[in-house]
Amino acid sequence: MNELKFIKYLTGKIKPSKDIVRGIGDDTAVIKYTKDKYLLFASDMIIGGVHFTKNADPFNVGWKAAAVNISDIAAMGGIPKYIVISVGVPGRGNEKILKGITEGAMAVCRKFGVEIAGGDTNFSKNIIIDVSIIGEVEKKNVVRRDGAKEGDLIFVTGKLGDGRNKHLTFTPRIKESRLLVENFKVNAMMDISDGLFLDLSRLCDESKVGSCIYKSLIPVSDKAKSLKDALTYGEDFELLFTMSISEAKKLMRYMGKKFFPDASLIGQITNKSKGINFIDEKLKMTKIKPLGYQHF
Amino acid sequence: MNELKFIKYLTGKIKPSKDIVRGIGDDTAVIKYTKDKYLLFASDMIIGGVHFTKNADPFNVGWKAAAVNISDIAAMGGIPKYIVISVGVPGRGNEKILKGITEGAMAVCRKFGVEIAGGDTNFSKNIIIDVSIIGEVEKKNVVRRDGAKEGDLIFVTGKLGDGRNKHLTFTPRIKESRLLVENFKVNAMMDISDGLFLDLSRLCDESKVGSCIYKSLIPVSDKAKSLKDALTYGEDFELLFTMSISEAKKLMRYMGKKFFPDASLIGQITNKSKGINFIDEKLKMTKIKPLGYQHF
Repeated sequence: MNELKFIKYLTGKIKPSKDIVRGIGDDTAVIKYTKDKYLLFASDMIIGGVHFTKNADPFNVGWKAAAVNISDIAAMGGIPKYIVISVGVPGRGNEKILKGITEGAMAVCRKFGVEIAGGDTNFSKNIIIDVSIIGEVEKKNVVRRDGAKEGDLIFVTGKLGDGRNKHLTFTPRIKESRLLVENFKVNAMMDISDGLFLDLSRLCDESKVGSCIYKSLIPVSDKAKSLKDALTYGEDFELLFTMSISEAKKLMRYMGKKFFPDASLIGQITNKSKGINFIDEKLKMTKIKPLGYQHF
Repeated sequence: MNELKFIKYLTGKIKPSKDIVRGIGDDTAVIKYTKDKYLLFASDMIIGGVHFTKNADPFNVGWKAAAVNISDIAAMGGIPKYIVISVGVPGRGNEKILKGITEGAMAVCRKFGVEIAGGDTNFSKNIIIDVSIIGEVEKKNVVRRDGAKEGDLIFVTGKLGDGRNKHLTFTPRIKESRLLVENFKVNAMMDISDGLFLDLSRLCDESKVGSCIYKSLIPVSDKAKSLKDALTYGEDFELLFTMSISEAKKLMRYMGKKFFPDASLIGQITNKSKGINFIDEKLKMTKIKPLGYQHF
């Protein structure tokens, strides 16, 4: 059973109550909170040997563990508030590892005004870190991944394909996300953790739409090994989002200006029946298979 | 560095803001929420080969992973609301494992009106489950572990020493906790996860008090391997709590009655200078070493 199938199994099994505005299937759960705000709640686990190599610097590992969760809040248009950290570490040399992980998590938390509220420590052969995060978002600003509409233009922030280098040190796109949701109507958004192809497929699946993206428009990082790698390796943690053409025009007027993030138009949302398509320089269209990092 | 030292390191490093009423060092974090309520936030990780054997039933593993978190909310006097579950499972045979874990977690959640709001799935050689929980508690009902006062009487719910048998299937003491906080003034409370000796030491440390407990008063389970095991093995997930003598008298009038949980008076809180003491049948007093399950 792969991850997508398991998520489908779960969403079939678990019927959220009216207090859960959005449950399994998005970057975070969206829960009723105050009159004007929702609570966001999510968790992400990273495991030594899977998400980072055994000789990775504990500082970077701690940074990443917190940063991927902060990125989930960014994906919803929210503000990250509190995290709890559970760690499993080997008995031997654990002091250096624990302190490193803590310093790394604290560093990225400090950057985004997030507080470490608690945690749990355990013995484990491999290093395991699971961070859970609580965030909040104004009701009017929340963005889910299932809101893309036919005709919407598709954007990504930053460059893709540098995941191999920066996955332990990346900066979650909170600033960019908040600029977007505070100034524009964003119809759908998620973060790119498992590669553009796979994550775009998820966004389209959830929104019940199709899409076409243009090879020539993809902002490929100088450091990318190849175009394929930039599209499927993942660990970019950039934002993928869609907006109506009129909102997109507004956005493009601001793009590149000092106060606005670097974002690139990469394609358009289509009718579901068209599928998900990749268009090359010669305008040849091929169907995208949802390739990318599948956790199992 | 052992767990206690690490927690001391963390509390030295991390200064909570005014929004965090109680941070690292209790069963859950206590966070400002509404006019009358606090938000509770915690996480607990369980790892195959450490917290359960490799051939444990996935249903029970899922039950335990959620139940230990629900127990943390009980320890604060709160009401559990939402959990997110991160799992790491081997690729092979993962369908049965994932479904079993899910069913088990759902079963205990259903029992306590808790909703599964999301999660994360990963590949891992050993099964790892980390559950994070959000709960809430009326400001007037929250109970921390640092509120024990000299003269308080010390109680535990249920029997101790059956952890080896019931640790995968235990019932978190939410009902008992709520009956306590709604009807009595409880000064300090925590759940017994690592054994009475170690957890009582923690409660006394946090409250800056000493204590004496009486061998003849300890409610040892028929199934306990030995008295020592009942005091140090852990995994009981019963509640350890203290209240003033006048409140305790009120409680004792209700104890054993139908609507009230089975609880036992086991000793008294003393001045810190007296240390933590165990008094045998001949009234011989010995100092308690904080023995119990240390995670590393």
